[in-house]
Amino acid sequence: MTTRGQRPEPAGTFTGLSAFPLTPLRDDTRLRDDAVDEAAFVGLIERLVGAGVDSITALGSTGSYAYLTGAERARVARLAVEHAGGVPVFVGVGDLRTSHVLAHVDNAEAAGAAGILLAPMTYQPLTDEDVFELFRTVTEHTRLPVIVYDNPGTTHFTFTTDLYARIAELPGIVSLKIPGVPADPAAARDRVAAIRAAVGEHVTIGVSGDAFAASGLNAGCDAWYSVIGGTLPSPALTITRAAQEGRATDAVAESERLAPLWDRFAEFGGSLRVVAAIAEHLGLAPHRCLPLPVQGLSDAQRAAVAEVLDELGLG
Amino acid sequence: MTTRGQRPEPAGTFTGLSAFPLTPLRDDTRLRDDAVDEAAFVGLIERLVGAGVDSITALGSTGSYAYLTGAERARVARLAVEHAGGVPVFVGVGDLRTSHVLAHVDNAEAAGAAGILLAPMTYQPLTDEDVFELFRTVTEHTRLPVIVYDNPGTTHFTFTTDLYARIAELPGIVSLKIPGVPADPAAARDRVAAIRAAVGEHVTIGVSGDAFAASGLNAGCDAWYSVIGGTLPSPALTITRAAQEGRATDAVAESERLAPLWDRFAEFGGSLRVVAAIAEHLGLAPHRCLPLPVQGLSDAQRAAVAEVLDELGLG
Repeated sequence: MTTRGQRPEPAGTFTGLSAFPLTPLRDDTRLRDDAVDEAAFVGLIERLVGAGVDSITALGSTGSYAYLTGAERARVARLAVEHAGGVPVFVGVGDLRTSHVLAHVDNAEAAGAAGILLAPMTYQPLTDEDVFELFRTVTEHTRLPVIVYDNPGTTHFTFTTDLYARIAELPGIVSLKIPGVPADPAAARDRVAAIRAAVGEHVTIGVSGDAFAASGLNAGCDAWYSVIGGTLPSPALTITRAAQEGRATDAVAESERLAPLWDRFAEFGGSLRVVAAIAEHLGLAPHRCLPLPVQGLSDAQRAAVAEVLDELGLG
Repeated sequence: MTTRGQRPEPAGTFTGLSAFPLTPLRDDTRLRDDAVDEAAFVGLIERLVGAGVDSITALGSTGSYAYLTGAERARVARLAVEHAGGVPVFVGVGDLRTSHVLAHVDNAEAAGAAGILLAPMTYQPLTDEDVFELFRTVTEHTRLPVIVYDNPGTTHFTFTTDLYARIAELPGIVSLKIPGVPADPAAARDRVAAIRAAVGEHVTIGVSGDAFAASGLNAGCDAWYSVIGGTLPSPALTITRAAQEGRATDAVAESERLAPLWDRFAEFGGSLRVVAAIAEHLGLAPHRCLPLPVQGLSDAQRAAVAEVLDELGLG
């Protein structure tokens, strides 16, 4: 725990492209030795720094935070900050039990994180009051800026806009990672405006769901919390910079060029398995780098992904 | 790990009333000290043994397995077996990561468990193949009998009847905990018969969802995996023994008498919060015994539960 002091100024930090690297595990048929492949993880961090991403979020859902021990998470957070070359590193601290969340927060602080990302993981379904109290407890415990992580596909918790607003009033809440925006540009603008009215100007809004990123940024989102950006930062930066510079059609054009990737995300059970296959194909991660029981793609699916990468000039 | 030997004969063990005790945590505002209240847990085990339940399932969902560390779970498993006086103890071994599941299995074996209960916990959604491989890996790893735990309300994984059948063919699968049965008796019999046809006669079928227990047992389920039975074993035994002795209407009558409890389960967000409030009200668990962020019932809700207990002569 850190005694409450001056909170760091978050202006600008929680905007632009935040890249979510994988935390690759070693390919080892002896299951007890499925340790983090630290060299591969450091390689991913250095690749992101070289590409010029605006921030790195270690131990997001893409980084398999939910599957790792406290000690593994502490080590990964340290490695990320040590190799980020000054690029801000946010660290995922979610867990099923509040006392475990607080331990992860302490480790993120000790590692030098610039912020923490907190999703309300569930086993027993949580009430709005349970989730509010979780965020209240964490913001009271740390001086680190907090990103609210709304990811109903993994947490099965559904935030209301009212709950966004209540949590946004807690000290230290600086950003909100939303799950997506409507495809229609006008509807997307209305949705982002409604969220902004609820959370206030001090909270940046970050889109996720990579296929929605161009729409979200063009609709006024301040940030893109990006799965693909953690492994293929260049096309993600192309979309982000176009949207930031007001070239909305360029952002949409690059997103549409990547549509074969978004299609594989939908077809092959989500972005994580596909991005892991991409990293493995590019030699950035060992074979079968996801934590079992998540098996990753079949050989046929991997071949389809490799073909898409070749077509897009990303292989 | 145990070398594969003769599997113990499970006949009869996986039938009747299996009571699921809470794992109470200490009431402590210092969150870091939210340790298991071992004395309260042992008290619950001794209460179940005294009541004459057929088996005890420690570290089920009711026992908050998903929230506890490996060391806590190993200790709870040992305490359960040590105080069960020969009543068979099954131990929940689910976790998000397969390697962690195997560690829990080893600890359950070392504790002297008579079986293990395995739910496919999810963060990233799992495929049928992921779940089949999880069960394959575990059954290959241990000689302990395995209960397949289908609890979509917490795992968000939906078993098909076909997947039941595939998993039932693995060595060591002895029982299947299903989430409930249709309310209509004929529909319930059809459902149980269809599952039995799929899994075979060597796998017992246990109903859960306490409000469904009488219907499920009357429809041919062999066991009741019971939340309420872990805290209020007497009325649960009344239902179980009536159904086992062919007194179907008596089983239904006792279940209908308890309807005010089932209504509170539905009204107050599920059985766990209500049963924890009952245990706390009866002095069997310390105040606020659930793992945060799960807050438990409000004072007004607790008063309503206490009133129901008084009316039912269970207070």
